[in-house]
Amino acid sequence: MRVLGIDPGLTRCGVGVVEGSVGRPLTMIDVNVIRTSAGEQIAKRLVAIEAGLNAWIEEYQPDAVAVERVFARSDSSTIMGTAQASGIALVVAARRGIPVALHTPSEVKAAVSGSARANKAQVTAMVTRILRLDAPPKPADAADALALAITHVWRGGAQARIDAAMAAARSAQ
Amino acid sequence: MRVLGIDPGLTRCGVGVVEGSVGRPLTMIDVNVIRTSAGEQIAKRLVAIEAGLNAWIEEYQPDAVAVERVFARSDSSTIMGTAQASGIALVVAARRGIPVALHTPSEVKAAVSGSARANKAQVTAMVTRILRLDAPPKPADAADALALAITHVWRGGAQARIDAAMAAARSAQ
Repeated sequence: MRVLGIDPGLTRCGVGVVEGSVGRPLTMIDVNVIRTSAGEQIAKRLVAIEAGLNAWIEEYQPDAVAVERVFARSDSSTIMGTAQASGIALVVAARRGIPVALHTPSEVKAAVSGSARANKAQVTAMVTRILRLDAPPKPADAADALALAITHVWRGGAQARIDAAMAAARSAQ
Repeated sequence: MRVLGIDPGLTRCGVGVVEGSVGRPLTMIDVNVIRTSAGEQIAKRLVAIEAGLNAWIEEYQPDAVAVERVFARSDSSTIMGTAQASGIALVVAARRGIPVALHTPSEVKAAVSGSARANKAQVTAMVTRILRLDAPPKPADAADALALAITHVWRGGAQARIDAAMAAARSAQ
């Protein structure tokens, strides 16, 4: 399966495509960051992010999209922009009928490193190793998007079964 | 000018269309709430909100869209969904090239009631009076979307001049 991981952000939105399946080696297809300028109007920045994500989906035709789950924290001035960007990411995928899942930062850290409290350097080192890269992915902050995609591949089978069971439970109500 | 006001929310997204200009009577064209079910996946709910907003824009062809500015508050469990819905609202308008502006709740209260700390009943009463309605708009929580649209009409001229001046200043840098 091919997964597009999206680490939402208004100034820098990480995107990474990983291919593989549980129990087999994973391959990095591409990784980058979609940037928008802080001088632009927020609506235009969100449109640029939407266009960038659409282009990635069209180019790589992922089977699933994994988006980082954003939490409200009063200590962050950028959280609203991040939440808005995550909303765009969810819609861009769901509008096309591509399955989309949210994974928390702790889940991603635990999946790739074995520890929910791994630091950034540990996550990057594990992503580099898991994808058998010669060097850490660049730009550096795009490693999180790859980690999301890896997490999704590894959780994918279980989550699909959970979703199917939940949908069946709902329709039986 | 015709303005679509959007009070973003994931469960209930208020929409109201107002027509008029500064110094002349304003008319309500339509008002409602776009609802999505809490039982649905968040990505699907955002897609439904996007479809609903697209339908309103296509039906009413607004000259501008006014969206409530959302703030991060640690005391709200719904804030992330609201932020995501606001991101969708901004993109739906900006993608079509429709001018879009954000107004804070305080700005809206001050514009329609004269007090930035007006309560919900006061805002609804003023919206009813400004639009010369026989009864308060229904559903009740849609009054905020109308208040946003009214605020935008009244601020519209000044804001357009500010935006033009800012754009000119940026291009002169």
